[in-house]
Amino acid sequence: MVDILHRIGVTSSPDDVYAALTTVDGLAGWWTEDAEGDGNAGGTLRFRFGPGGFDMKVLEVRPAELVLWEVVDGPEEWIGTQVRFELKQEDGFTIVLFRHEGWKDPVEFMYHCSTKWATFLMSLKKLLETGKGEPAPHDVKISNWH
Amino acid sequence: MVDILHRIGVTSSPDDVYAALTTVDGLAGWWTEDAEGDGNAGGTLRFRFGPGGFDMKVLEVRPAELVLWEVVDGPEEWIGTQVRFELKQEDGFTIVLFRHEGWKDPVEFMYHCSTKWATFLMSLKKLLETGKGEPAPHDVKISNWH
Repeated sequence: MVDILHRIGVTSSPDDVYAALTTVDGLAGWWTEDAEGDGNAGGTLRFRFGPGGFDMKVLEVRPAELVLWEVVDGPEEWIGTQVRFELKQEDGFTIVLFRHEGWKDPVEFMYHCSTKWATFLMSLKKLLETGKGEPAPHDVKISNWH
Repeated sequence: MVDILHRIGVTSSPDDVYAALTTVDGLAGWWTEDAEGDGNAGGTLRFRFGPGGFDMKVLEVRPAELVLWEVVDGPEEWIGTQVRFELKQEDGFTIVLFRHEGWKDPVEFMYHCSTKWATFLMSLKKLLETGKGEPAPHDVKISNWH
């Protein structure tokens, strides 16, 4: 089992970062504009990117501390993996420790998703610090796989 | 052992991407302006970022295909790890499969380095596609750890 790891720091409060990870408006502001569902524990979130996308079951949330999803629909490699955001405060930043965990194999798609997650986390930072993120379909293109 | 993985696609030839990974001018254009040394097999490259940095032994190079370094000096977590760039052509892009492999533990510094590598690989893409990258000290700041 292999994981994608990332760390960013945002000059916003943990509450504001948490809201961007648990409300549809927040998620639509940095990941994909085509987002809907319920970001509370037990809810399901539906994210679409052009033809494809992901459905996430919200396994656990702790205000200003943790958001944990399980992928219940999407590309085969993603199903059953978990996406974890841990929040903490440090030096005036809210630190986001991100982990997309439980990939069966380090396939080429995982390399792509790792870089893509980094650009989306920078979009989250931008949304919180400037008021405007870069969610799909306005996301940064990184390759022929977009 | 855990690895950092990334994938980008650049609309430049494999030869141009290879030059940006093996010449001091190329490396200084996307990773850090404070770069020196010899990027050929058996050579050592020295990269500095403010106070710290990395020395890389060039283990293997294959024109337009592969660059493989071993970290011989730098932060303790990096020493002995390897940094691998594999190049291939696809859909008019040169694809860079990146792997920083052999981390002993998924420490928080690894989360940081993963995101930071993504921004530097986007800087490599920018250098090749626009003529101007974002090497340190002009690199994208991602957190309190820069």
